[in-house]
Amino acid sequence: MPDGDLFMTQAIALARDNVRKGGRPFGAVLVIDGEVVAIGVNGVMSTNDPTAHAELVAVRGAAMKRGSPDLKGASVYASGHPCPMCLAAMRLAGITDISYAYSNEDGVPYGLTSAPLYADLRKPFAEQQMTFAYNPVRPEGEEDIYELWGKTQKG
Amino acid sequence: MPDGDLFMTQAIALARDNVRKGGRPFGAVLVIDGEVVAIGVNGVMSTNDPTAHAELVAVRGAAMKRGSPDLKGASVYASGHPCPMCLAAMRLAGITDISYAYSNEDGVPYGLTSAPLYADLRKPFAEQQMTFAYNPVRPEGEEDIYELWGKTQKG
Repeated sequence: MPDGDLFMTQAIALARDNVRKGGRPFGAVLVIDGEVVAIGVNGVMSTNDPTAHAELVAVRGAAMKRGSPDLKGASVYASGHPCPMCLAAMRLAGITDISYAYSNEDGVPYGLTSAPLYADLRKPFAEQQMTFAYNPVRPEGEEDIYELWGKTQKG
Repeated sequence: MPDGDLFMTQAIALARDNVRKGGRPFGAVLVIDGEVVAIGVNGVMSTNDPTAHAELVAVRGAAMKRGSPDLKGASVYASGHPCPMCLAAMRLAGITDISYAYSNEDGVPYGLTSAPLYADLRKPFAEQQMTFAYNPVRPEGEEDIYELWGKTQKG
């Protein structure tokens, strides 16, 4: 079995185990240099944290384990098609090698698809199903936060 | 001062304080029914967690405090334009009222913009700067994870 299939099988086994424990069917394995650095399962049901998706949990775990928010070179094997939050989280961490075993189409009969959210988020902000407002408050007498940050970066 | 400006001033103050503590200039305030339920600051520098953005931290905090991943009706006041991860996290939690005080354009001179990542993520998956592969592994002799999950939902 190719390594990719092996890691994917592990992600699927994590998802299966998570369902048996009352969770959602999502698991993820994060691999660097052929070694599993972190795993994650969907913990939304058990923690009430809507961000506790398998891939995001694996990214957090790997970054903290390695002591760096930069996970360039890592591969993520996700049992299900990553949602927009998890995809962006992986990209923020520099991860560009991502695979998944169940597509959004595979998930449709079970309500397990992030396709509608993807579709909305691809629209211009003003057309999405939300209010997204630029409110350029600049408190008087206080230093501008971006200028303040800029100064710290020149030290 | 309108309530929105007041909460935004609070988000900016959190960002300023975070810079003074060595962090990035981002703060967020999550409000439900006129009350601040959770706050967040960017903790990437202090925790090495690439997902520790102000808005995501506030969403996690609010959800766990309320004992529900559903934060419908909440408003988020973010000092900076939310990144794609945080925007998706808020939407997953059902939050549709979002405002920010510093735009991506405001952040460009300081390298504080998520516009390039937004631009990439808006492209079709195959055109994005990543490998994103459907690898439909189905381990032999094991129950299908989505079917297994489907059964638990009928109970």
